[in-house]
Amino acid sequence: MRVDPHLQLELEDLYARYAEALDDGPLEDWPELFTEECLYLIIPRDNHELGLPVAIMRCESRDMLRDRVTAVRETMMFEPRYLRHHVTNLRVLGHDGDALTAAANFSVIEVLPDELPRILIVGRYLDTLQRTDGEWRFRDRRCVFDSLLVPNSIIYPV
Amino acid sequence: MRVDPHLQLELEDLYARYAEALDDGPLEDWPELFTEECLYLIIPRDNHELGLPVAIMRCESRDMLRDRVTAVRETMMFEPRYLRHHVTNLRVLGHDGDALTAAANFSVIEVLPDELPRILIVGRYLDTLQRTDGEWRFRDRRCVFDSLLVPNSIIYPV
Amino acid sequence: MRVDPHLQLELEDLYARYAEALDDGPLEDWPELFTEECLYLIIPRDNHELGLPVAIMRCESRDMLRDRVTAVRETMMFEPRYLRHHVTNLRVLGHDGDALTAAANFSVIEVLPDELPRILIVGRYLDTLQRTDGEWRFRDRRCVFDSLLVPNSIIYPV
Repeated sequence: MRVDPHLQLELEDLYARYAEALDDGPLEDWPELFTEECLYLIIPRDNHELGLPVAIMRCESRDMLRDRVTAVRETMMFEPRYLRHHVTNLRVLGHDGDALTAAANFSVIEVLPDELPRILIVGRYLDTLQRTDGEWRFRDRRCVFDSLLVPNSIIYPV
Repeated sequence: MRVDPHLQLELEDLYARYAEALDDGPLEDWPELFTEECLYLIIPRDNHELGLPVAIMRCESRDMLRDRVTAVRETMMFEPRYLRHHVTNLRVLGHDGDALTAAANFSVIEVLPDELPRILIVGRYLDTLQRTDGEWRFRDRRCVFDSLLVPNSIIYPV
Repeated sequence: MRVDPHLQLELEDLYARYAEALDDGPLEDWPELFTEECLYLIIPRDNHELGLPVAIMRCESRDMLRDRVTAVRETMMFEPRYLRHHVTNLRVLGHDGDALTAAANFSVIEVLPDELPRILIVGRYLDTLQRTDGEWRFRDRRCVFDSLLVPNSIIYPV
């Protein structure tokens, strides 16, 4: 669908700030990009397409996202790594007033000490966004990943 | 060159729908993004730069693209895999009425069962687009790939 | 921050031309995207965050960038390879008249003869740009890379 350039760039800025919070921190900025009531899933593509609910990460409110940040902070102490997101192909699929649906491709590259960068996970964000207090926020973000293999190291949000 | 934001975003939407047709399907949407008379090539960079015509995939009309979809459908039965495109750095190089030339970088990440994602192929789209029936479509798309090694698994369009 | 769509697209075009000069050449176009007095660094993330000055590449003027091009030309004779940049998540962080600061994510994929593509380096551009003669140019570009391992093959700019 045709989208107003201002709206498209506002969304691209939001998606870039989302990646920035995860890659460069502070990680505490990440939950603030969601509405208070929200759903966040990391789900294998096969499960998503079959309508199976099993996800490898599931948070059902902004408070649960904040808990996840605390858990990551504790785990990261023991295993340093850097992540780098590429988010491309952002498309608005539908837009009605203060709500819209969108999709984008993501890849997350992981850098461990003494190793070359490697692709940790790739897939597609399927999103519902809501405009609250003059800002677009994620109300429902499903990180549908293409891998059949579940990486051990997905303790971090995508 | 300076491009009107509406045109730039219209093209980015087209490039994203192209990737979506290949990554998420339905694959049958892919040929519809080309004009009826068209040229589609996947060609090694060295051949392209030397003006050599040898390509690893060559379709000379939209009907040939449709045949390719049928061939992929049959082959994919035997070897399941997921692909994920990242398309970046889209630039309009020239624009004259209902025709334009553009370039973009692509990478295709392949996910096979029980393996981590890996980069299958990277390179650059060199495109001529034509506006027909109010929509931009590809009249000439050359997928110029950087690898010297030809991956066995390029049965799928890029 | 909210950015005018024309400015955002002008910058995206600049970042795409930067990648094009490095990936597709001519490499001689690369220094011309900087102001005459400029700073160009490739620096590990840990050093950058700790305020340590040690960089693996440091050029302090456009003339030094031109010298770098000459050095690359001589080295590349002996070791052919192709590079492909993906630049995503471009964000303007501040804008005041003819100066602005911006950040973007980068990954550089390397293709050597007879090998599959691999990720050479990933990280984040931290930039200060200046408008001179009607064009935005880089006055200060820091390529902050996530790897702890320094690739041998970084003789080429990022």
